[in-house]
Amino acid sequence: MYHFRNDYAEGAHPSILQKLLETNLEQQAGYGEDIYSTEAKAILRQKMNHPEAVIYFISGGTQTNLILISSLLRVHEAVISAQTGHIAANETGAIEATGHKVIAVPATDGKLQPADIQSVMDAYALRPHVVKPRMVYISNATETGTIYSLAELEALSAFCKAHQLILFADGARLGHALTAASNDVRLEDMARLTDAFYIGGTKNGALLGEALVFGKPELADEVDYALKQKGALLAKGRVMGIQFLELFRDDLYFDLARHANRMAAKMAQAIKAKGFSFLSEPTTNQIFPILPKALIEHLSTQFAFYIWKEIDADYAAVRLITSWATDEQMADAFIEAMNQYTNNGK
Amino acid sequence: MYHFRNDYAEGAHPSILQKLLETNLEQQAGYGEDIYSTEAKAILRQKMNHPEAVIYFISGGTQTNLILISSLLRVHEAVISAQTGHIAANETGAIEATGHKVIAVPATDGKLQPADIQSVMDAYALRPHVVKPRMVYISNATETGTIYSLAELEALSAFCKAHQLILFADGARLGHALTAASNDVRLEDMARLTDAFYIGGTKNGALLGEALVFGKPELADEVDYALKQKGALLAKGRVMGIQFLELFRDDLYFDLARHANRMAAKMAQAIKAKGFSFLSEPTTNQIFPILPKALIEHLSTQFAFYIWKEIDADYAAVRLITSWATDEQMADAFIEAMNQYTNNGK
Amino acid sequence: MYHFRNDYAEGAHPSILQKLLETNLEQQAGYGEDIYSTEAKAILRQKMNHPEAVIYFISGGTQTNLILISSLLRVHEAVISAQTGHIAANETGAIEATGHKVIAVPATDGKLQPADIQSVMDAYALRPHVVKPRMVYISNATETGTIYSLAELEALSAFCKAHQLILFADGARLGHALTAASNDVRLEDMARLTDAFYIGGTKNGALLGEALVFGKPELADEVDYALKQKGALLAKGRVMGIQFLELFRDDLYFDLARHANRMAAKMAQAIKAKGFSFLSEPTTNQIFPILPKALIEHLSTQFAFYIWKEIDADYAAVRLITSWATDEQMADAFIEAMNQYTNNGK
Amino acid sequence: MYHFRNDYAEGAHPSILQKLLETNLEQQAGYGEDIYSTEAKAILRQKMNHPEAVIYFISGGTQTNLILISSLLRVHEAVISAQTGHIAANETGAIEATGHKVIAVPATDGKLQPADIQSVMDAYALRPHVVKPRMVYISNATETGTIYSLAELEALSAFCKAHQLILFADGARLGHALTAASNDVRLEDMARLTDAFYIGGTKNGALLGEALVFGKPELADEVDYALKQKGALLAKGRVMGIQFLELFRDDLYFDLARHANRMAAKMAQAIKAKGFSFLSEPTTNQIFPILPKALIEHLSTQFAFYIWKEIDADYAAVRLITSWATDEQMADAFIEAMNQYTNNGK
Repeated sequence: MYHFRNDYAEGAHPSILQKLLETNLEQQAGYGEDIYSTEAKAILRQKMNHPEAVIYFISGGTQTNLILISSLLRVHEAVISAQTGHIAANETGAIEATGHKVIAVPATDGKLQPADIQSVMDAYALRPHVVKPRMVYISNATETGTIYSLAELEALSAFCKAHQLILFADGARLGHALTAASNDVRLEDMARLTDAFYIGGTKNGALLGEALVFGKPELADEVDYALKQKGALLAKGRVMGIQFLELFRDDLYFDLARHANRMAAKMAQAIKAKGFSFLSEPTTNQIFPILPKALIEHLSTQFAFYIWKEIDADYAAVRLITSWATDEQMADAFIEAMNQYTNNGK
Repeated sequence: MYHFRNDYAEGAHPSILQKLLETNLEQQAGYGEDIYSTEAKAILRQKMNHPEAVIYFISGGTQTNLILISSLLRVHEAVISAQTGHIAANETGAIEATGHKVIAVPATDGKLQPADIQSVMDAYALRPHVVKPRMVYISNATETGTIYSLAELEALSAFCKAHQLILFADGARLGHALTAASNDVRLEDMARLTDAFYIGGTKNGALLGEALVFGKPELADEVDYALKQKGALLAKGRVMGIQFLELFRDDLYFDLARHANRMAAKMAQAIKAKGFSFLSEPTTNQIFPILPKALIEHLSTQFAFYIWKEIDADYAAVRLITSWATDEQMADAFIEAMNQYTNNGK
Repeated sequence: MYHFRNDYAEGAHPSILQKLLETNLEQQAGYGEDIYSTEAKAILRQKMNHPEAVIYFISGGTQTNLILISSLLRVHEAVISAQTGHIAANETGAIEATGHKVIAVPATDGKLQPADIQSVMDAYALRPHVVKPRMVYISNATETGTIYSLAELEALSAFCKAHQLILFADGARLGHALTAASNDVRLEDMARLTDAFYIGGTKNGALLGEALVFGKPELADEVDYALKQKGALLAKGRVMGIQFLELFRDDLYFDLARHANRMAAKMAQAIKAKGFSFLSEPTTNQIFPILPKALIEHLSTQFAFYIWKEIDADYAAVRLITSWATDEQMADAFIEAMNQYTNNGK
Repeated sequence: MYHFRNDYAEGAHPSILQKLLETNLEQQAGYGEDIYSTEAKAILRQKMNHPEAVIYFISGGTQTNLILISSLLRVHEAVISAQTGHIAANETGAIEATGHKVIAVPATDGKLQPADIQSVMDAYALRPHVVKPRMVYISNATETGTIYSLAELEALSAFCKAHQLILFADGARLGHALTAASNDVRLEDMARLTDAFYIGGTKNGALLGEALVFGKPELADEVDYALKQKGALLAKGRVMGIQFLELFRDDLYFDLARHANRMAAKMAQAIKAKGFSFLSEPTTNQIFPILPKALIEHLSTQFAFYIWKEIDADYAAVRLITSWATDEQMADAFIEAMNQYTNNGK
């Protein structure tokens, strides 16, 4: 049984483990003050062409989201998210637990546009009886696999600046977004156009770790306290520093994401060739084909994946996720199983 | 320059890295549902002779503390800690950030006794104008290197039970406590006498990870939600499961702690032999000798350690910490440097 | 300019002020332990036929909501509300500020039915990645002036009991609900069918004050702490005790609400007679007629009220609120102004 | 039985009730936008010679403290208080419930001096492992009846400014402080030397209400949101506006406090004349004489007061509180009872 369930089923890219081994017995300073974290940050700043960026490594996405959001908002301020946004849908009220409302907006393809934000601001005008929208949270790639174009990001950034809104981008799958075939956003655009964003390691080759980047360093001035307070300051910060160093030293990070995208595209293409459609246009490493239920059942005997959404009596959408570790032979096997089944007239 | 500054300066015990490598490309379920986490928990339950214990792996101590405490207390309830307790002194208000007062008690040797708790309850009697003390937080070993005897733990446990107080033990250095020469507490006593406690991995051979154990499973009924909410549910939970499996499969955990204690004892003995005294009786892997400042300055040229407390014009207490990774040759070198210096009549 | 803007534009019913005067210089115990609070609670218990009910007086609705909700929910638990519910729409994130998500449900006429709750529970099934729905918050009368029938309340109560959900009713305008012409719910039904509810004083004749009632006394066991913690324990609790005593000694509370409803009904009837329709069926003291904009403009020169919702180029809905203090001559004047204007062929 | 237990045993000064009656049926805007609140604020600004001061009326002290503190601190920031401070000792963890640590300092006579603050800052230097001290909370008069001199306030203010610390003064008994015989602080000094402070109404003649004053208006920019969020925005804000208008229109506030102080001074003088000493020098309306237990028992048959502290086998300190409403005949009766008893050789 091979899994296309998620992009965190395997461990880390072997070169990361190798580097952990090599450096294992060196004595290093704790709490992210080790030389590997320092070097990884320097490389990241260089790659995003932003020498003043402030960077912290944090073990997971929910923790990164809640630290960033709670350390920048005042008690009466709220964050706007697409309804599908991870903070709105999948984090067990993590943001509310820090005291802030998440204003969830129904949004096409999981993306927020200036008009969505404007609607929220219109709806939240009756000061002081409503919260003050103060931050916009987006994901790139989104939870439905779509990505922002540069023009969209520019527009959103300009709108947020004009309305004193902090723009924060969740990049749990940023690698997959930035290496998508249709992408025109660069890492430095993320740093330039957002106030803060993060680069997800966990879903792209690391054991754990997300790199939280403040393009506006003044926003980061005291976030080190928040990291400690929320339990995110790992004693052995080297574990994350070494991983990001390996991932970004030679663009391994992007190579891994490209592989994941290529595997997804290969499967998507084969599925399209059979005439099936998708919930959203396949773009990154998450694809949502709409398949006959009988075919789904057949494929399920060999491959593990989530049934995402009932479409009608005969069809359902499934979610297939590939990763840096996806074995191309298994992607081929999936395609082969589908083709055989459909060719047999079923 | 060799460090005796902390017990998290190195990576992980090599057999842990080896196991991470071996299992790296296996596809495993996420969020702690992998077979390694499952197996590690089974072994831990067996070792603590407590088949019903509920166990979660969490990346660090602060996070473990804040999850346990905030998920068990109601809004008006407070936790009692020694003033030196980690939650009172070193976690940037992590517990208060979840809404709860930490009642800090001056306590001999970092330990709480029933009389300390009784004093707090007497002082917090004017309901409803004061918080309700509801939990007792202890550390074993304590932040000053001391340990609880079985009799002390039994007394504390009985007192807490009689007063409807939850007893929670921070075991960031539990291995060092349970393997101390003077210790008479077993792992199963911890499970039996507390309501919850944790077994620290980070400071005893793991890259990261603490095992939170609920001896009273009914207290753990919904703590999985809190783990996710506070960002503690690592996608690749296998990373911690594998580590605890390696640490407890063959008692490696205790062997490593024993080594750390032996190194500290060796250094303590040599220091005593020179006639120096200690802030508290050397017991585990943290020792606090009171040394002449000139000697401290001399040793500082070769070894890194913290100056803990000014004693008088001529003397200061320093903190020396050993670990599973401490090189015995370096402990010997420290002793040699001290002896040479003092033998030269300084 | 006469106001139909809200039901808190005047002070208190004169007999309340009279009683405050009479008792003014008596020395009374503080913090709600005065004899008037005690007597008011006894009368309320009798009127709701529930000798075990636990009752607290709190200065306002938002505070009552946040105390009740935050003191009963655990960190990962959430409250379900209609989208129009006060906690969802008008309290500046008060509930989120205590750490809990408000799950807002689009709901007909501002009311929740079992099917609405079931939908939420279905949507929040992916434990532990989502909050746990644990409480249902309803308002009676609702924010749109509608009320629950006894059958609806019975059904909701049974559903909540069957699903371990706490049922809490906001009764800021409970008087208006229970005296509505179409109402079949009694005060004792509120106590019997909810776990907790409150009886609003501020909007029905008091200077300030809501009576929070726990029909299930075990839920109230430690809520006194929460009252103090949230700043709701007024030193001169007598101020609220005296008011509720006056309001309930001889059913003044219901008389006042009946007057408000009668004024609204009179206006509604006249508006209907002119052929205008309503956003929702006029039931209590808030009515939402849909009027020609020219008429609205005309009426606005003499009367103050809110324009609630744009309907089309020619029509808008307005909100008219009456109260215990509404002067019938002014209601008549409003009707007269409308009639004159429309009779003049406009 | 006459009470010297607290200063909130009676209702309000009669002229306040009179004004509530007179204005009762006027229609006024809600939420503090009424003309009485507006006028009261104008008068207060004039009396404190500070035209830019921003003022809000809030129903009680705990609520005022928690709103001010939580709306100005970031997640990792803490407030420093004397151990006897109300937020540290008597508010059921209200500040911690908003997420912030209260750093409690043992302090002579309930007062904080710059050296106390400096000590805290020295102790909280290990960033980011400790909270950041960011606010200083003082009370004037203090919880033990003492007051700050102008020189002390000037020094504290300068120290706070120099260290970027917000200075906030709890004035639940500010009237008693500013009218004490030994006082040299004026209302305008409070506005000039603190960043925010409040003027307590509840304990000096009002039914309820504290006036929160921001001497630094920029700190108040969005506090209206916080007021609503914490449930402090009373629908009938007029109730507090009218009271403060009456209290400050003609300095009634200070006359009332002067009476309370005079009653306390009269009793203190008589007690001193009998040779008894005090826990702290009698200054305002709270005095703490140390009396023989037999005398205490005798007085308790006629007068109610708190026994504050056991001194030895024969003596205890009691707390006597006078107020604007204290009947001078009753103060005389107390003195008489004491004198008779002691004159009888007991």
